[in-house]
Amino acid sequence: MSTDKAAFLSIYKQIESDLLSDISNLPGLSSELKRQLIEYYSTCLPYTVPGGKMTRGLTVIKGVEVLKGRALTEEEYKHAAILGWQVEWLQAFFLVADDIMDASITRRGQPCWYQRPNVTQDNAINDALILENMIYQTLRRHFKSHPSYVALLELFIDTTFRTEIGQHIDTNGTPYAEGKRAALDLSRFTLDRYRGCVRYKTSYYSFYLSCALALAYCGYDQDSDEGKQLYQKAEDVCMRLGEYFQIQDDVLDAYAPPEVLGKIGTDIEDAKCSWLVCKALEMVNDDQKQILVNHYGRHDAEGVQKVKELYKELKLEELFHEYEEEQKKKCDELIAKIEPESFRELFTFLLGKIYKRQK
Amino acid sequence: MSTDKAAFLSIYKQIESDLLSDISNLPGLSSELKRQLIEYYSTCLPYTVPGGKMTRGLTVIKGVEVLKGRALTEEEYKHAAILGWQVEWLQAFFLVADDIMDASITRRGQPCWYQRPNVTQDNAINDALILENMIYQTLRRHFKSHPSYVALLELFIDTTFRTEIGQHIDTNGTPYAEGKRAALDLSRFTLDRYRGCVRYKTSYYSFYLSCALALAYCGYDQDSDEGKQLYQKAEDVCMRLGEYFQIQDDVLDAYAPPEVLGKIGTDIEDAKCSWLVCKALEMVNDDQKQILVNHYGRHDAEGVQKVKELYKELKLEELFHEYEEEQKKKCDELIAKIEPESFRELFTFLLGKIYKRQK
Repeated sequence: MSTDKAAFLSIYKQIESDLLSDISNLPGLSSELKRQLIEYYSTCLPYTVPGGKMTRGLTVIKGVEVLKGRALTEEEYKHAAILGWQVEWLQAFFLVADDIMDASITRRGQPCWYQRPNVTQDNAINDALILENMIYQTLRRHFKSHPSYVALLELFIDTTFRTEIGQHIDTNGTPYAEGKRAALDLSRFTLDRYRGCVRYKTSYYSFYLSCALALAYCGYDQDSDEGKQLYQKAEDVCMRLGEYFQIQDDVLDAYAPPEVLGKIGTDIEDAKCSWLVCKALEMVNDDQKQILVNHYGRHDAEGVQKVKELYKELKLEELFHEYEEEQKKKCDELIAKIEPESFRELFTFLLGKIYKRQK
Repeated sequence: MSTDKAAFLSIYKQIESDLLSDISNLPGLSSELKRQLIEYYSTCLPYTVPGGKMTRGLTVIKGVEVLKGRALTEEEYKHAAILGWQVEWLQAFFLVADDIMDASITRRGQPCWYQRPNVTQDNAINDALILENMIYQTLRRHFKSHPSYVALLELFIDTTFRTEIGQHIDTNGTPYAEGKRAALDLSRFTLDRYRGCVRYKTSYYSFYLSCALALAYCGYDQDSDEGKQLYQKAEDVCMRLGEYFQIQDDVLDAYAPPEVLGKIGTDIEDAKCSWLVCKALEMVNDDQKQILVNHYGRHDAEGVQKVKELYKELKLEELFHEYEEEQKKKCDELIAKIEPESFRELFTFLLGKIYKRQK
């Protein structure tokens, strides 16, 4: 069931329809204003929420399945899928906001939401906030009387906070002197900052949250001694999976053939705090460093080529393959420590999706 | 106690200090990254949260006082003040975000947060999100084991949603064809849209939230039959107070002497959906309408003067004074219906702050 995307998407439709009903039921608005709101949000939600691989959402279902150790009842499936969609809603909130902050053009192969003619940046900031809020409306609708209600709320609140801290570290990691592209400050591209950024900006919401929601829904209490340990072990694996995943992403951006990756990588042009540039900066001599100073963060094909040649000279791809094997081993070790044993399958599943991926 | 600003501000300091400790305790960050985060947020919080009249926050304390009908214990005062500060935090979140959306320059007599040299717009969007999240961190810290915990969370969640709906109505109420100032569409400046916008964007968070928090903290249950009625009556008064307050604001923007108001009104230049322009559009003949079409929403002193002359011709100030007396009467009537009788004092207090205010 955890791999049935059509079933998962049908739950999306129900959630969307409930949220639009909420808007119809707001007190003190004329029918014309309600009509405009419904028209707007019945475009916004399907544009921003579904789509993508939906791995985060499906992981919640998989997690509940392995914890229960049996096929889910209809109600359990629905609950797990609703929680899964809330992770997707959280992602939609972050992506709409991040695309504005990063001035991105496309997302999932179509224009970013804020780029749409009738949206504008001002609406889109507010829409990101509304997407976030909808998570809590939906949790209340379905879990208000469930024993895990408060735990679920708090997992979303904490994950949101940590992701925002990650966003702060990221935004402040590529400061151009006086906001001008002319003077890129490479001194903040350290592996230390990189690791903090990835952990907070990506790992918590992309890996840990789905696993922790499955635990909370199945009654594991984060505040009990036993529960604390279990959540901690899940977090340890997820932090490593998240870092590994992001480093892969960075390496694929520079090395994967665009026809396999489905996009053309532009991390060098965009002055991204990539694992590659952080690792390079640890290894370069003065001449090599000058290549980065001169060419990193510029939209100039020749310069990008020079940076890529430097990466080759430093054997970064080979270093990554060593790193990959090491991560795989460490993840396996951490997974082996997880109790109940049945829960290990969730992390093996996640690791399997990542290990040696080509896109 | 509810009027002692120094006592209230000392609670702010405690909340701020707890939030900064949380950042220090985040796992997996180097001490250098933590130092940067602490440095940043120990500037951000005092800059964006305290300041202003703090009426929303102090209203929670006043509300708990009148509901208890006696002086508060030290713990009750602290709790009420913490809740009051969360309303101020919510306001800080909205103001930081709104200032970006409105491209404002100053706020409370100093540059808007996003205008500060080391902040930038990207950081500020994220800071608004972090300010919002801090509300829930603080609620958990102090109310996790209080019987009102879930009710308090949900009041903040719902109020946030409604305010965001108001922001949407507002943003979409001044659409310029193709985003250009050249073509202002006056057709959306209706009193209908105005009322919806004010109710959602202002009244819920500025009036209702503080009163409802006092009720929830004192054990009135919104889901009980009796509680439902009480919250509904509080909402009815607050919606009217909020509309009255905002209409005053709009009238003061055009008519109050700048030396009394403390700022120079620019609603006409900024093409704001003001009560004055909505009311005018209901009354104008074709010639008069042309004055608005030609001059509303332009930074041109002569044109602004022509709009103000039109307002005078239409006797809008006199209409406002009639409206004001009517609102006062209706508020008094609604307040008289509130039980317990002791709770009426809170609304009389709020009405007293507004009635015939000069700034």
